[in-house]
Amino acid sequence: MFNQQYKECIQACLECMEACNVCYSACLKEENIGMMTNCIRLDRECADICSFAAKAMQTNSPFAEQICKLCAEICEACGKECEQHEHEHCTKCAESCFRCAEACREMAS
Amino acid sequence: MFNQQYKECIQACLECMEACNVCYSACLKEENIGMMTNCIRLDRECADICSFAAKAMQTNSPFAEQICKLCAEICEACGKECEQHEHEHCTKCAESCFRCAEACREMAS
Amino acid sequence: MFNQQYKECIQACLECMEACNVCYSACLKEENIGMMTNCIRLDRECADICSFAAKAMQTNSPFAEQICKLCAEICEACGKECEQHEHEHCTKCAESCFRCAEACREMAS
Amino acid sequence: MFNQQYKECIQACLECMEACNVCYSACLKEENIGMMTNCIRLDRECADICSFAAKAMQTNSPFAEQICKLCAEICEACGKECEQHEHEHCTKCAESCFRCAEACREMAS
Repeated sequence: MFNQQYKECIQACLECMEACNVCYSACLKEENIGMMTNCIRLDRECADICSFAAKAMQTNSPFAEQICKLCAEICEACGKECEQHEHEHCTKCAESCFRCAEACREMAS
Repeated sequence: MFNQQYKECIQACLECMEACNVCYSACLKEENIGMMTNCIRLDRECADICSFAAKAMQTNSPFAEQICKLCAEICEACGKECEQHEHEHCTKCAESCFRCAEACREMAS
Repeated sequence: MFNQQYKECIQACLECMEACNVCYSACLKEENIGMMTNCIRLDRECADICSFAAKAMQTNSPFAEQICKLCAEICEACGKECEQHEHEHCTKCAESCFRCAEACREMAS
Repeated sequence: MFNQQYKECIQACLECMEACNVCYSACLKEENIGMMTNCIRLDRECADICSFAAKAMQTNSPFAEQICKLCAEICEACGKECEQHEHEHCTKCAESCFRCAEACREMAS
């Protein structure tokens, strides 16, 4: 089994991955898409690193901590972008991003 | 939000991904590793396609159904390999694989 | 070493992945982004499955043929979308997609 | 188009990804597999981060440099493991890993 200390952080990564994937797909349908381009890009970056970090922890990768440290930075950037928009999917995504950034920082420390 | 019909299948994919990642990592530490090579290989194939399928559903991909159909086949193959071994991680993994195969088949039909 | 019959198809997948990644990034900066949403989405789907297919062939996956069959379908869809746009990155991407679709179909047959 | 300074580093990542995928698959068939477990694990870590880094550069990700910095560390670790083995796939893989580590360090600096 993977390190039990990772459990909460894996959960945070999987929730953030889902929120970012949902936000990405919803942004592509927004009327004001011209304002959503950074959000679309960062949603993809963030969903992909969260997925990568979850895999690293679930497989007890020797690089899990460094990967989570990077994941925290990307989550932070995505959260800061998402919280600037009023769409419900962005607000939710920002919350998940900040929660995941916090969990990844703790895990990596 | 993603298609609510996908919810159960996404959950099954994420659980199978975790079980396969855990089984992969545990197999690499088994003493009888010479007998675990197919299991190691299929665990990786299965964890990776489950992750891919979850992303497809969470982003409402137009190819979600075809991806889940392929995921069902790979889960089935991984489950059949895992159930031949008595390690607890293999037994658990086989169960998750068969559950996920079923969920993916239903989703794709 | 991987199956030498795969060599050309791996190359086509890696070129298509690059063309789709470049087109995705360029589309996000286009002024007429409202018309590029399907292109953005399909570029990501296509880049990701091409990467997945290349890995499958390079590791001699028992599922390489099924994965390439799916890859051909996604490349075809991405190519058809891209060829409708006059941006140079879209034109180039469409060419790479159709070439990769062809290589994947041959490989899977 | 992506930043042309990235071109050489992308190439190094794609070559390293291929070498690691080939080495992973070949290690799983070696008779002395009990000695290859670290190699199998690191091949997967390294192939996956190289793929991730190539995508980051090809899409002009704002995190491309941090991702390449992490990629350099993982390539270095994989190269050090691979160079301890005499299998031809390991020797070749070690060379690709060290070349990629160097390219990623330069790119990130």
